Amino acid sequence: MSEILVVGSLAYDSIETPSGKVDRALGGSANYFSLAASMFTNVRLVGVVGEDYDKKDIELLKSRQVDMNGMQVQKGKTFHWEGSYTGDLNEAVTKKTELNVFEKFNPEIPASFKDSKFVFLANISPDLQLKVLSQVQKPLFTGMDTMNFWISSKLNDLKAVLSKVDVVLINEGEAMMLTGEANAISAAPKLCQMGPRALVIKRGEYGFVLYQKDQGFCILPAFPTSKVVDPTGAGDTFAGGFFGYLSSLNRVPTSSDLKQACVHGTILASFTIQDFSVAALAKVTKDQFLARLKDYQKVIAL
Amino acid sequence: MSEILVVGSLAYDSIETPSGKVDRALGGSANYFSLAASMFTNVRLVGVVGEDYDKKDIELLKSRQVDMNGMQVQKGKTFHWEGSYTGDLNEAVTKKTELNVFEKFNPEIPASFKDSKFVFLANISPDLQLKVLSQVQKPLFTGMDTMNFWISSKLNDLKAVLSKVDVVLINEGEAMMLTGEANAISAAPKLCQMGPRALVIKRGEYGFVLYQKDQGFCILPAFPTSKVVDPTGAGDTFAGGFFGYLSSLNRVPTSSDLKQACVHGTILASFTIQDFSVAALAKVTKDQFLARLKDYQKVIAL
Repeated sequence: MSEILVVGSLAYDSIETPSGKVDRALGGSANYFSLAASMFTNVRLVGVVGEDYDKKDIELLKSRQVDMNGMQVQKGKTFHWEGSYTGDLNEAVTKKTELNVFEKFNPEIPASFKDSKFVFLANISPDLQLKVLSQVQKPLFTGMDTMNFWISSKLNDLKAVLSKVDVVLINEGEAMMLTGEANAISAAPKLCQMGPRALVIKRGEYGFVLYQKDQGFCILPAFPTSKVVDPTGAGDTFAGGFFGYLSSLNRVPTSSDLKQACVHGTILASFTIQDFSVAALAKVTKDQFLARLKDYQKVIAL
Repeated sequence: MSEILVVGSLAYDSIETPSGKVDRALGGSANYFSLAASMFTNVRLVGVVGEDYDKKDIELLKSRQVDMNGMQVQKGKTFHWEGSYTGDLNEAVTKKTELNVFEKFNPEIPASFKDSKFVFLANISPDLQLKVLSQVQKPLFTGMDTMNFWISSKLNDLKAVLSKVDVVLINEGEAMMLTGEANAISAAPKLCQMGPRALVIKRGEYGFVLYQKDQGFCILPAFPTSKVVDPTGAGDTFAGGFFGYLSSLNRVPTSSDLKQACVHGTILASFTIQDFSVAALAKVTKDQFLARLKDYQKVIAL
């Protein structure tokens, strides 16, 4: 087993879905990622919170052996996002984004984290992603996420990150936006030309597209879930399962490893969406994960 | 090998997509279905055309050994649909529907067709679908398609058909509309409670959901296609590949047969969408099909 370093947001989310709503519930890419990855590996977290951040939210991650030495506490309030989902739950409508202490986030990698073998740059500004990469020594495998906002506002920095990472995990719409292609299948090879050896396009309820330069496509569905309560964090959970699994193997991932990593990601994400915030993800056991993994293999078997 | 009876539309379509446009090109569910199914089995077609129907369009099907004895030629014009696709190509916008001779279509099953072992009721009025079922003797396996228009206008007749068929092939949106469920996964078992032993939800570029009462879900992607020229007829091609394969086996389909039938459907549909109208489907060879089938198995393999 190795260690995965994640740099991303720690947040409170106010969310409304057809199933109900929650106010200032635990959120942020680094929280979802860490809870997911810690099922398989050692997690090192870098992020920033405000003075209002609840001790129990730190304890939750510590109880999963997440190394919190890279968590800064700054004067002010924690990043707060307010959004809602309607209808098919596939897209969030943002009502309010209060960056608070996240606005001036300056990720500093503790000395004890610099030898991390696996690195995941969650959805933060591409110039900060570059800054993180410059601080780590010799990772075996690095990955990133991004979003439409950075594609339109910081494309040059984003391209610089793309040229340095091994894998990109991204939404379908963002893959098309970034490449100007009309669908995921044509976008995938084009995006890999920008640098990474592999690309994972997250398709929500439709699963994922994994494209590897030397292997072509692996396309599989999401785990079938009849009730989606809150899709927030599904993508970050996917990334956590994906990198947690790879880090547990502690080697340069083979093409087969990347396929299995996607399956780990999609299975864990299927738990996250079954309750608000991190409620379901924080409770899921390894046995529950393995049971769903077995069911999944049946779903995709011919 | 057995025979598959199909009852559906024969039409001319005027279609505009981001790739271009065609005027009065061959279309209709029974044409797409027959071209697809005839790769694997003997097809018997029942439909209606007007006096304007081109001889070469009849010859095309005859060249595939499709039995056209159930094709009526009526005074007037052939069914004409005009529509366009924009953006992601997932949904057609109908500009004009001229039912013409299709408006008074009264499907009569020739005596020589009544012993058909496989029957597919393409998307026509549910009362006509019932009429077809009452005319066939003892089919081994029957299936149907339908659309939002019939769900809102003829729900009782539609439920009567549902209670009599073995499998339903339907779009995702229609499955949700018919059951009042929020997603395909919750819609599937509810729809099977209405009668059929199996349900296939067609998801376009995302593939299919097969649900079987005794087996649960099989969910797989579409064959990856980087350029979609015209998605018209993809669903009917899927149905043709699905039933053509089952009919070639000439037995009550096993649960494994139904999975393989879906794969045959999705592979053939991937050809249809690569050109306008039936152009690509009419040209595809068995070898090309088998090559794509092999590639598909690689795409879904872990």
